Amino acid sequence: MDFIRQVLDRVGDKWSMRIVAALASGPMRYTDLQRQIPGISQRMLTHTLRQLTEDGLLSRTAYAEVPPRVEYALTPLGGGLYEIVKHMIGWVADHHDEIRANRS
Amino acid sequence: MDFIRQVLDRVGDKWSMRIVAALASGPMRYTDLQRQIPGISQRMLTHTLRQLTEDGLLSRTAYAEVPPRVEYALTPLGGGLYEIVKHMIGWVADHHDEIRANRS
Repeated sequence: MDFIRQVLDRVGDKWSMRIVAALASGPMRYTDLQRQIPGISQRMLTHTLRQLTEDGLLSRTAYAEVPPRVEYALTPLGGGLYEIVKHMIGWVADHHDEIRANRS
Repeated sequence: MDFIRQVLDRVGDKWSMRIVAALASGPMRYTDLQRQIPGISQRMLTHTLRQLTEDGLLSRTAYAEVPPRVEYALTPLGGGLYEIVKHMIGWVADHHDEIRANRS
């Protein structure tokens, strides 16, 4: 159970979910991701990209160009996680008015 | 869109998801939650419980007993979020072997 909890902590993290959601529209470079995810620090983006790539949820492709180009993309496994994240985004979109009303 | 992102950050947070999952089995006291969620600090548990209660995802009931008893429970809205969290836990349980293999 401990490993499952550990994986849940990694994928159920707000930055992981934002990166997975951003890459759902296709492969992106590091700087594209930085622009797409306001508020994420360089350290956090680098750290989370490395974790998601280690877990096999993202692929990292380096193109032998000048200057070198590196792109991140969802793997099929990452695509599966995106389905869950999409579900959560949909739930929040359906209920954010109710949550806003509860807060006031 | 910004408010949706803000709510997603709150509910898509690992501690929020752990608390929602723990309360799916029924109302609990603060100390029960502390035991159920290893690794959560008192400050984080207090903060996250307050946020989830403000958002209307949890109810907080204080019983006029000696000593006073306070219980937290999922509201119907919180129950809806639990369905998403359950979905994510299920996905992690189904894929944690694949993730473990990817890491090695």
